[in-house]
Amino acid sequence: MQKGLASSRLRRYPLNNVFELIETKRDGKRLNPSQIEWFIKGATSRRIPDYQVTAMLMAIFFNGLDRDELSAWTAAMLHSGEVLDFGHLDSSVVDKHSTGGVGDKVSIPLAPLVAACGVSVPMMSGRGLGHTGGTLDKLESIPGFSTQLDSDTFKTMVATHGMVLAGQSETLVPADRLFYALRDATATVPSIPLISSSIMSKKLAEGLDALVLDVKVGSGAFMKDLGSARTLAKTMVDIGASHGVAVSALLTGMDQPLGREVGNANEIRESVEVLRGEGPADLTELVLELGAEMLLTGSAAQSREEAQDRIRSAVDSGAGLQKLADVVTAQGGDANALEDLALLPSAEENMTINADRSGIVARCDAHAIGVAAMRLGAGRETAADKVDHAVGIRVLAKIGDRVEAGEALAALSYNNPARLATATAILSEAWSIVDGPVDVPPLILETIR
Amino acid sequence: MQKGLASSRLRRYPLNNVFELIETKRDGKRLNPSQIEWFIKGATSRRIPDYQVTAMLMAIFFNGLDRDELSAWTAAMLHSGEVLDFGHLDSSVVDKHSTGGVGDKVSIPLAPLVAACGVSVPMMSGRGLGHTGGTLDKLESIPGFSTQLDSDTFKTMVATHGMVLAGQSETLVPADRLFYALRDATATVPSIPLISSSIMSKKLAEGLDALVLDVKVGSGAFMKDLGSARTLAKTMVDIGASHGVAVSALLTGMDQPLGREVGNANEIRESVEVLRGEGPADLTELVLELGAEMLLTGSAAQSREEAQDRIRSAVDSGAGLQKLADVVTAQGGDANALEDLALLPSAEENMTINADRSGIVARCDAHAIGVAAMRLGAGRETAADKVDHAVGIRVLAKIGDRVEAGEALAALSYNNPARLATATAILSEAWSIVDGPVDVPPLILETIR
Repeated sequence: MQKGLASSRLRRYPLNNVFELIETKRDGKRLNPSQIEWFIKGATSRRIPDYQVTAMLMAIFFNGLDRDELSAWTAAMLHSGEVLDFGHLDSSVVDKHSTGGVGDKVSIPLAPLVAACGVSVPMMSGRGLGHTGGTLDKLESIPGFSTQLDSDTFKTMVATHGMVLAGQSETLVPADRLFYALRDATATVPSIPLISSSIMSKKLAEGLDALVLDVKVGSGAFMKDLGSARTLAKTMVDIGASHGVAVSALLTGMDQPLGREVGNANEIRESVEVLRGEGPADLTELVLELGAEMLLTGSAAQSREEAQDRIRSAVDSGAGLQKLADVVTAQGGDANALEDLALLPSAEENMTINADRSGIVARCDAHAIGVAAMRLGAGRETAADKVDHAVGIRVLAKIGDRVEAGEALAALSYNNPARLATATAILSEAWSIVDGPVDVPPLILETIR
Repeated sequence: MQKGLASSRLRRYPLNNVFELIETKRDGKRLNPSQIEWFIKGATSRRIPDYQVTAMLMAIFFNGLDRDELSAWTAAMLHSGEVLDFGHLDSSVVDKHSTGGVGDKVSIPLAPLVAACGVSVPMMSGRGLGHTGGTLDKLESIPGFSTQLDSDTFKTMVATHGMVLAGQSETLVPADRLFYALRDATATVPSIPLISSSIMSKKLAEGLDALVLDVKVGSGAFMKDLGSARTLAKTMVDIGASHGVAVSALLTGMDQPLGREVGNANEIRESVEVLRGEGPADLTELVLELGAEMLLTGSAAQSREEAQDRIRSAVDSGAGLQKLADVVTAQGGDANALEDLALLPSAEENMTINADRSGIVARCDAHAIGVAAMRLGAGRETAADKVDHAVGIRVLAKIGDRVEAGEALAALSYNNPARLATATAILSEAWSIVDGPVDVPPLILETIR
């Protein structure tokens, strides 16, 4: 409908540059690196009003950013604030980022295992929103543990312990905080260039040598299908390449929760189980694969076999668990809670969701279970909500499991009975049980490097 | 690239309504009338922040508004402020709107001719920007003439004189002032639904029985091609129909200036010539056709022939010129300047642009001539500029005219020699002279009702 409409009246006379940049992207043309840098600096300093920033973001939603634009856009975001530099360390510096799922506590056992293998992990994590939990919320169920560290403490932790588990620093990538708030208000979150530049600018600002991405695919993930997950992964691998950082991505299934525990203290318990070598098979496998990939991309192992062996050894020797205990202590937490899991918060009430028939589990819906956990208080409906670290859901039957009528599918821990009704209503629809047979979906779908 | 990306994280939890409305339009789905009314009320009252309004405007730029949405959108804009009501008048109430061109002084002779035929014309006009002049600027070259009338004076003028020539009232359609300012800053001006709702909301707020549109097509117009002009015209006719107002649209050529005069006092002089029956053929024809269309759509004539005869009689009898003189006097102006055109502002210096060869004029570029007049000071590069009412361009050779080498193509009147160089540079490229023959483009291309 816009064809043939020319804005010559506007184009031919003096204009602020913002207008021309929005118009360029609106028309599907390419922005050059200096235009992108100028726009992001202007937006971050608030010289460019938000109403022009959101028009640009919506134009990008429709017309995208090509590879060169996206590299420049990410670089400009990355340089909008402090950029960490761990060049003085002997070890290589590698992080992992997950696009988010239900029961995804991987960071908590993974970071200490990799650090125990001699690779530094300056891990910055987020909080839960909606059906997905957040690593920071989970860590804060350890009594006393502090995730809000200043920049110097953050760097000292990495230098001293080879790792840190902290929240996003206020000093890194201020452009992303502005853009994310505006995207969240203007329906421009689900855009691959905007998602990938947001993730990669924050990770590249950590001063990494390498990065491993865990791109979740399925009902409990942001990406519902393999195609869009693959596009997102490739886009981020490309951005890494254009910044000289080795990035590899595992595409992993998120149709059902990862592991068995969903909730904050619940997921700390399961993380410790992994570090003890007693974790559930899927979670243990993913920690092993992501850890091996981190050692490989960080050039800390010669082969996949060697890398896997070193991660397994860090479990078997207890070095990973000891590393987590050291970090918990250094960040003000009570490391005894990792020894005696009863010291973690626990809920007052328990109940189960039971199978209404016998058969094989064909569906164990990650999204529904995530929403139910949020309703119990484990997560946030809005950013202002407080989480209850004690409540959660233990998933007792996953896809492919045989269950009998009346057997428990899930065990709920809760404090507020008023929250129970909506959670159980959601959970009553979360499992499908069939006569079978059922194909168990693979956990690791693809690796993109 | 957005396919398969679901924003379920955001969609399933409490959200402000604005987000959902932007998301709906972003995804090309339809907004219902109550959503549209709520959005426009919220935007106008500033409860909805501008950064959400501009995201919506950009989504509309890409995905448009269907017929029902556009009717509701226009109605909501229209009702964002005062709506005039001339129901107490015996006469029908009809206005004309032009999408703007170069040398387009049609309103100035047209309104008094139609008013002299017994149809009320509550004409609200705009100021010039860029290469197009504005009726208000032209009228203000008449000494003492005031175009800024309060609402009561505006209505009294219509009741007493059957017409008024004034600026857009501050009380009408505040939504449009906001939207236009935001569109102008975010490259969302050239959108047919946004253009048509802007025009139609302002015109419908005048309390009209009927409206005649002059949609300009060509180098000097906003619409460069017939297809987009036709779409715009049909869209506005449809909006009128959905509001019970008869709207017809003439599509008219704007590859070369209308008439011979471009500038403010220049165009008042030519308007008076039309009212004296001494105007150039093209301008006289367009005034006659638009006037006849206004009488017909306003049910003030039974046939086109009768309508044309009545307009012609209003010229021949001097009733049109007398009506303009009465209105000029009533609005504080010196009507003597319409008798003695030497009382209008005149520039200090004159020069001509001459043909560099003999032949037939094949191009007389409206856009270039409009820009040159603006550079001389007749128009504004930015809204803050002041206009010089005395300066202008008299076009001496139009398409199809035979010229000899060295003969004047245009006569410039100017005050500031520093402004001359860019104007003459532009004008030196504005004419093409060929051996011929040349097809003279038709003035009236189509009528849409």
